[in-house]
Amino acid sequence: MSKRKGSNAERELVHMLHDKGWAAMRAAGSGCTTLPSPDVVAGNTERYLAIECKSIKNNSQYFPEDEIEQLKTFAHRFGAEPWIGIRFDFLKWFFVHLDDVKKGKGKLYVITLEHAQKEGKSFEELVGLFKQEKLT
Amino acid sequence: MSKRKGSNAERELVHMLHDKGWAAMRAAGSGCTTLPSPDVVAGNTERYLAIECKSIKNNSQYFPEDEIEQLKTFAHRFGAEPWIGIRFDFLKWFFVHLDDVKKGKGKLYVITLEHAQKEGKSFEELVGLFKQEKLT
Repeated sequence: MSKRKGSNAERELVHMLHDKGWAAMRAAGSGCTTLPSPDVVAGNTERYLAIECKSIKNNSQYFPEDEIEQLKTFAHRFGAEPWIGIRFDFLKWFFVHLDDVKKGKGKLYVITLEHAQKEGKSFEELVGLFKQEKLT
Repeated sequence: MSKRKGSNAERELVHMLHDKGWAAMRAAGSGCTTLPSPDVVAGNTERYLAIECKSIKNNSQYFPEDEIEQLKTFAHRFGAEPWIGIRFDFLKWFFVHLDDVKKGKGKLYVITLEHAQKEGKSFEELVGLFKQEKLT
Protein backbone atom coordinates (compact mmCIF):
# COMPACT_ATOMS: atom_id res chain seq x y z
CA MET A 1 0.00 0.00 0.00
CA SER A 2 1.13 3.55 -0.52
CA LYS A 3 2.64 5.36 2.43
CA ARG A 4 -0.01 8.06 2.32
CA LYS A 5 -2.86 5.56 2.18
CA GLY A 6 -1.41 3.81 5.23
CA SER A 7 -1.05 7.08 7.14
CA ASN A 8 -4.61 8.08 6.31
CA ALA A 9 -5.93 4.76 7.60
CA GLU A 10 -3.92 5.18 10.81
CA ARG A 11 -5.24 8.72 11.28
CA GLU A 12 -8.79 7.50 10.73
CA LEU A 13 -8.30 4.82 13.39
CA VAL A 14 -6.79 7.29 15.87
CA HIS A 15 -9.84 9.53 15.44
CA MET A 16 -12.26 6.60 15.80
CA LEU A 17 -10.56 5.58 19.05
CA HIS A 18 -10.54 9.18 20.29
CA ASP A 19 -14.28 9.45 19.62
CA LYS A 20 -14.80 6.43 21.89
CA GLY A 21 -12.90 8.06 24.75
CA TRP A 22 -9.52 6.42 24.16
CA ALA A 23 -6.18 8.19 23.81
CA ALA A 24 -4.34 7.00 20.72
CA MET A 25 -1.07 7.87 19.02
CA ARG A 26 0.50 7.14 15.64
CA ALA A 27 4.13 6.05 15.54
CA ALA A 28 6.81 8.19 13.93
CA GLY A 29 7.81 6.99 10.48
CA SER A 30 10.40 4.26 10.65
CA GLY A 31 13.70 6.12 10.84
CA CYS A 32 17.01 4.46 10.05
CA THR A 33 17.85 3.53 13.62
CA THR A 34 14.38 3.42 15.11
CA LEU A 35 13.43 0.48 17.26
CA PRO A 36 10.40 -1.44 16.00
CA SER A 37 7.03 -0.17 17.11
CA PRO A 38 3.44 -0.77 16.05
CA ASP A 39 1.63 1.78 13.90
CA VAL A 40 -0.80 2.85 16.62
CA VAL A 41 -0.82 2.59 20.40
CA ALA A 42 -3.97 3.31 22.38
CA GLY A 43 -5.14 3.21 25.96
CA ASN A 44 -8.29 3.87 27.98
CA THR A 45 -6.85 3.38 31.51
CA GLU A 46 -8.15 -0.19 31.59
CA ARG A 47 -6.88 -1.64 28.35
CA TYR A 48 -3.88 -0.89 26.16
CA LEU A 49 -3.73 -1.76 22.47
CA ALA A 50 -0.75 -2.13 20.12
CA ILE A 51 -2.10 -2.12 16.57
CA GLU A 52 -0.34 -2.85 13.29
CA CYS A 53 -2.50 -1.28 10.56
CA LYS A 54 -3.04 -2.24 6.95
CA SER A 55 -5.27 -0.67 4.38
CA ILE A 56 -5.52 -2.94 1.35
CA LYS A 57 -7.38 -3.38 -1.89
CA ASN A 58 -6.81 -7.13 -2.24
CA ASN A 59 -8.65 -9.87 -0.40
CA SER A 60 -5.65 -10.99 1.60
CA GLN A 61 -2.57 -9.56 3.24
CA TYR A 62 0.72 -11.33 3.97
CA PHE A 63 2.90 -10.38 6.91
CA PRO A 64 6.59 -11.26 7.20
CA GLU A 65 7.43 -13.23 10.33
CA ASP A 66 9.59 -10.41 11.74
CA GLU A 67 6.69 -7.92 11.56
CA ILE A 68 4.56 -10.33 13.60
CA GLU A 69 7.41 -11.00 16.04
CA GLN A 70 8.09 -7.28 16.51
CA LEU A 71 4.44 -6.59 17.29
CA LYS A 72 4.40 -9.47 19.75
CA THR A 73 7.59 -8.29 21.48
CA PHE A 74 6.49 -4.66 21.71
CA ALA A 75 3.06 -5.57 23.07
CA HIS A 76 4.54 -7.99 25.59
CA ARG A 77 7.07 -5.46 26.92
CA PHE A 78 4.60 -2.58 26.90
CA GLY A 79 1.73 -4.44 28.45
CA ALA A 80 -0.68 -4.15 25.53
CA GLU A 81 -2.95 -6.44 23.54
CA PRO A 82 -1.43 -7.15 20.10
CA TRP A 83 -3.84 -6.56 17.21
CA ILE A 84 -3.72 -6.38 13.44
CA GLY A 85 -6.13 -3.71 12.19
CA ILE A 86 -7.01 -4.34 8.58
CA ARG A 87 -9.15 -2.18 6.39
CA PHE A 88 -10.25 -3.74 3.12
CA ASP A 89 -11.19 -1.17 0.47
CA PHE A 90 -14.90 -0.33 0.52
CA LEU A 91 -15.28 -2.32 3.74
CA LYS A 92 -14.95 -1.40 7.36
CA TRP A 93 -12.08 -2.25 9.70
CA PHE A 94 -11.49 -5.73 11.07
CA PHE A 95 -9.26 -6.42 14.05
CA VAL A 96 -7.56 -9.77 14.35
CA HIS A 97 -5.81 -10.64 17.60
CA LEU A 98 -2.25 -11.80 17.04
CA ASP A 99 -3.11 -15.19 18.52
CA ASP A 100 -5.59 -15.66 15.68
CA VAL A 101 -3.23 -14.80 12.83
CA LYS A 102 -2.45 -17.93 10.87
CA LYS A 103 0.83 -19.01 9.35
CA GLY A 104 0.71 -18.97 5.56
CA LYS A 105 3.41 -20.03 3.12
CA GLY A 106 6.93 -20.31 4.51
CA LYS A 107 7.79 -17.48 6.87
CA LEU A 108 4.72 -15.45 6.01
CA TYR A 109 1.55 -14.97 8.01
CA VAL A 110 -1.67 -14.24 6.20
CA ILE A 111 -5.04 -12.65 6.86
CA THR A 112 -7.73 -13.19 4.26
CA LEU A 113 -10.98 -11.28 4.05
CA GLU A 114 -12.84 -14.49 4.86
CA HIS A 115 -10.63 -15.09 7.90
CA ALA A 116 -11.00 -11.47 9.06
CA GLN A 117 -14.78 -11.66 8.78
CA LYS A 118 -14.89 -14.93 10.69
CA GLU A 119 -12.22 -14.46 13.38
CA GLY A 120 -11.84 -10.70 13.50
CA LYS A 121 -13.65 -8.16 15.63
CA SER A 122 -15.40 -5.09 14.33
CA PHE A 123 -14.22 -1.74 15.69
CA GLU A 124 -17.20 -1.63 18.05
CA GLU A 125 -16.33 -5.09 19.36
CA LEU A 126 -12.67 -4.15 19.77
CA VAL A 127 -13.36 -1.10 21.91
CA GLY A 128 -16.21 -2.81 23.75
CA LEU A 129 -14.15 -5.78 24.87
CA PHE A 130 -13.25 -6.04 28.49
CA LYS A 131 -9.76 -6.78 29.71
CA GLN A 132 -10.93 -9.96 31.35
CA GLU A 133 -12.07 -11.43 28.06
CA LYS A 134 -8.62 -11.08 26.54
CA LEU A 135 -6.81 -12.44 29.58
CA THR A 136 -8.67 -15.71 29.79
CA MET B 1 14.79 23.87 19.38
CA SER B 2 15.35 22.54 15.90
CA LYS B 3 13.12 19.74 14.73
CA ARG B 4 16.06 17.41 14.19
CA LYS B 5 17.52 18.10 17.63
CA GLY B 6 14.14 17.32 19.18
CA SER B 7 13.80 14.08 17.21
CA ASN B 8 17.30 13.00 18.19
CA ALA B 9 16.54 13.58 21.86
CA GLU B 10 13.33 11.56 21.54
CA ARG B 11 15.19 8.72 19.80
CA GLU B 12 17.81 8.72 22.54
CA LEU B 13 15.10 8.48 25.19
CA VAL B 14 13.30 5.65 23.35
CA HIS B 15 16.59 3.69 23.26
CA MET B 16 17.30 4.39 26.94
CA LEU B 17 13.85 3.10 27.88
CA HIS B 18 14.27 0.07 25.62
CA ASP B 19 17.59 -0.76 27.30
CA LYS B 20 15.77 -0.84 30.64
CA GLY B 21 13.20 -3.34 29.36
CA TRP B 22 10.44 -0.89 28.47
CA ALA B 23 8.64 -0.61 25.13
CA ALA B 24 8.61 2.96 23.89
CA MET B 25 7.35 4.74 20.81
CA ARG B 26 7.83 8.19 19.28
CA ALA B 27 4.77 10.02 18.01
CA ALA B 28 4.30 10.82 14.35
CA GLY B 29 5.09 14.45 13.51
CA SER B 30 2.15 16.70 14.13
CA GLY B 31 0.13 16.51 10.91
CA CYS B 32 -2.48 19.07 10.00
CA THR B 33 -5.43 17.21 11.46
CA THR B 34 -3.64 15.08 14.04
CA LEU B 35 -5.05 14.92 17.52
CA PRO B 36 -2.62 16.04 20.21
CA SER B 37 -0.28 13.41 21.57
CA PRO B 38 2.87 13.43 23.67
CA ASP B 39 6.28 12.98 22.03
CA VAL B 40 6.92 9.56 23.56
CA VAL B 41 4.73 6.89 25.10
CA ALA B 42 6.24 4.00 27.03
CA GLY B 43 5.06 1.01 29.03
CA ASN B 44 6.55 -1.86 31.03
CA THR B 45 3.29 -3.77 31.81
CA GLU B 46 3.11 -2.11 35.25
CA ARG B 47 3.53 1.55 34.46
CA TYR B 48 2.71 3.69 31.44
CA LEU B 49 4.41 7.00 30.70
CA ALA B 50 3.35 9.90 28.47
CA ILE B 51 6.39 12.12 27.98
CA GLU B 52 6.69 15.55 26.39
CA CYS B 53 10.36 15.98 25.47
CA LYS B 54 12.51 19.08 25.23
CA SER B 55 16.18 19.39 24.41
CA ILE B 56 17.37 22.90 25.19
CA LYS B 57 20.49 25.00 25.44
CA ASN B 58 19.08 27.63 27.77
CA ASN B 59 18.57 27.31 31.50
CA SER B 60 14.81 27.42 31.34
CA GLN B 61 11.96 26.32 29.13
CA TYR B 62 8.51 27.83 28.84
CA PHE B 63 5.46 25.75 27.92
CA PRO B 64 2.20 27.21 26.60
CA GLU B 65 -0.80 26.29 28.70
CA ASP B 66 -2.37 24.27 25.87
CA GLU B 67 0.71 22.02 25.59
CA ILE B 68 0.43 21.24 29.30
CA GLU B 69 -3.33 20.72 29.05
CA GLN B 70 -2.95 18.39 26.06
CA LEU B 71 -0.40 16.25 27.88
CA LYS B 72 -2.66 16.09 30.91
CA THR B 73 -5.69 15.13 28.84
CA PHE B 74 -3.87 12.46 26.83
CA ALA B 75 -2.29 10.90 29.93
CA HIS B 76 -5.60 10.91 31.78
CA ARG B 77 -7.50 9.22 28.94
CA PHE B 78 -4.71 6.77 28.17
CA GLY B 79 -3.96 5.80 31.74
CA ALA B 80 -0.38 7.06 31.84
CA GLU B 81 1.75 9.19 34.13
CA PRO B 82 2.31 12.66 32.59
CA TRP B 83 5.97 13.71 32.50
CA ILE B 84 8.05 16.45 30.97
CA GLY B 85 11.44 15.07 29.91
CA ILE B 86 13.97 17.86 29.61
CA ARG B 87 17.53 17.57 28.43
CA PHE B 88 19.72 20.58 29.06
CA ASP B 89 22.74 20.74 26.74
CA PHE B 90 25.80 19.03 28.23
CA LEU B 91 23.66 17.70 31.06
CA LYS B 92 21.63 14.55 31.45
CA TRP B 93 17.87 14.21 31.31
CA PHE B 94 15.57 15.41 34.04
CA PHE B 95 11.96 14.31 34.35
CA VAL B 96 9.43 16.58 36.00
CA HIS B 97 5.98 15.21 36.81
CA LEU B 98 3.23 17.41 35.46
CA ASP B 99 1.97 18.04 38.99
CA ASP B 100 5.35 19.65 39.75
CA VAL B 101 5.41 22.02 36.77
CA LYS B 102 4.93 25.56 37.99
CA LYS B 103 2.96 28.36 36.40
CA GLY B 104 5.21 31.12 35.10
CA LYS B 105 4.19 34.40 33.51
CA GLY B 106 0.64 34.65 32.20
CA LYS B 107 -0.47 31.50 30.42
CA LEU B 108 3.01 29.96 30.36
CA TYR B 109 4.43 27.19 32.50
CA VAL B 110 8.15 27.14 33.14
CA ILE B 111 10.84 24.64 34.08
CA THR B 112 14.19 26.07 35.09
CA LEU B 113 17.40 24.09 35.43
CA GLU B 114 17.36 24.77 39.17
CA HIS B 115 13.76 23.55 39.43
CA ALA B 116 14.52 20.46 37.35
CA GLN B 117 17.49 19.57 39.52
CA LYS B 118 15.48 20.04 42.70
CA GLU B 119 12.07 18.61 41.77
CA GLY B 120 12.88 16.43 38.80
CA LYS B 121 13.84 12.77 38.67
CA SER B 122 16.87 11.38 36.93
CA PHE B 123 16.25 8.77 34.24
CA GLU B 124 17.22 6.01 36.67
CA GLU B 125 14.73 7.35 39.21
CA LEU B 126 12.02 7.63 36.58
CA VAL B 127 12.29 4.01 35.45
CA GLY B 128 12.88 2.77 38.99
CA LEU B 129 9.76 4.32 40.43
CA PHE B 130 6.96 2.03 41.42
CA LYS B 131 3.37 2.59 40.45
CA GLN B 132 2.39 2.88 44.08
CA GLU B 133 4.65 5.85 44.60
CA LYS B 134 2.91 7.81 41.88
CA LEU B 135 -0.58 6.86 42.96
CA THR B 136 -0.30 8.03 46.55
